[in-house]
Amino acid sequence: MGVEERREQLIAVALELFSQRSPEKVSIDDIANAAGISRPLVYHYFPGKHSLYEAAVRRAADELAARFSEPHSGPLSDRLLRVMGRYFDFVSDHGPGFSALLRGGAAVGSAEANAVIDDVRQAAYEQVLAHLEIDAPGPRLALVVRSWVGLAETTALTWLDGRRIPRGDLELQLVHGFMALAAVTAADDEETAAAIRRIVAQEPPDGLVARLVTSLLGLVPGELLIPRQGGAAAAGGHPER
Amino acid sequence: MGVEERREQLIAVALELFSQRSPEKVSIDDIANAAGISRPLVYHYFPGKHSLYEAAVRRAADELAARFSEPHSGPLSDRLLRVMGRYFDFVSDHGPGFSALLRGGAAVGSAEANAVIDDVRQAAYEQVLAHLEIDAPGPRLALVVRSWVGLAETTALTWLDGRRIPRGDLELQLVHGFMALAAVTAADDEETAAAIRRIVAQEPPDGLVARLVTSLLGLVPGELLIPRQGGAAAAGGHPER
Repeated sequence: MGVEERREQLIAVALELFSQRSPEKVSIDDIANAAGISRPLVYHYFPGKHSLYEAAVRRAADELAARFSEPHSGPLSDRLLRVMGRYFDFVSDHGPGFSALLRGGAAVGSAEANAVIDDVRQAAYEQVLAHLEIDAPGPRLALVVRSWVGLAETTALTWLDGRRIPRGDLELQLVHGFMALAAVTAADDEETAAAIRRIVAQEPPDGLVARLVTSLLGLVPGELLIPRQGGAAAAGGHPER
Repeated sequence: MGVEERREQLIAVALELFSQRSPEKVSIDDIANAAGISRPLVYHYFPGKHSLYEAAVRRAADELAARFSEPHSGPLSDRLLRVMGRYFDFVSDHGPGFSALLRGGAAVGSAEANAVIDDVRQAAYEQVLAHLEIDAPGPRLALVVRSWVGLAETTALTWLDGRRIPRGDLELQLVHGFMALAAVTAADDEETAAAIRRIVAQEPPDGLVARLVTSLLGLVPGELLIPRQGGAAAAGGHPER
């Protein structure tokens, strides 16, 4: 094998091991065994476990960021749902490593690994904005998108801890969660409100957003709805009791 | 000064410095100067900067957790809003240190500091459940609360980066965000739906939740509302156009 080929093989082997166990439980001997080479040969290509770990994290980050790519057509909620499916595939494949990396700790935390995490967050943020067709968001819409990226992380980490909720439900909840966070901000922010109107205009009458709004309305008694001109509340604002 | 008194003084001085600058920018000399004692005397009480940092983080965590305490009376949204006010006071007072700690990095990340962060998250989680009057939540409601704690962190960190959004708006958005995340989960989960009904039953007609629901309805055209028996949608489900 050539130098680059061997390095690539070691990164792939390391990524596999670091995905399945937290990093302090993976030794250079494990990596050498899995690659079928000697321990000194591993050191020939990487100065130590830490540099192999960083290379594996960087590789995983590239893999994850590639999954964010999604054609710009069809309702946004469907696009987000497909991306969430690929995100959970990734999280599922790399579970223990994903948890260890994001939960940090002395064995894992390094400025380099944290920079990689931030790069992935930034890539996710930029992809969402691209789908919203927004170049330079104001601070409130930017916060919506960053909050949602954080929500996806929290949700994935919580799911990994026992996998007690079907992942399909969580993928759908995250799509709804995006709409919900945006809607909350839209009350104060015209840019976000306009983005929601554009999203909703692409939604079919029985689509994901319609089902969300319908189930929300079922939770709130009619007398809490304040009549408002022009929106749905104009039809829905008459108290029932 | 007695030993305990001197240790307390050094922790207070360290917390003040670590709150205002990221930890790598605080030296033992800075702490000794601020405390008005010699550098060797600092080392007499703490073996090094790292142990002082950890003690300061633990002190800050106790201070923050104390702010979560809120009487169990009145509408939940008002209680959450008061807690968010105290949370942003804390975040504002400890800005640079709060960011450095939560963003991690080699200079900061340690198993001990991460354990302290997790303790605070757990304290916040338990407080919210106590206000919901729920002892042992199912996994979906547990995820709502943990997600919301994460949302508050992301929001505070984003706010600190330039303070471009009035904090009062963010405090209110976080209260609405809790309702929104719970409402999304309620579509799949009866425990969460029941919790929302209990919350909403305590809300005044012109309260925080009513204003949120009203502004959400303004974003969605009537034809997206699917008629449903018994809830507000039964009144609001007639398409306007």
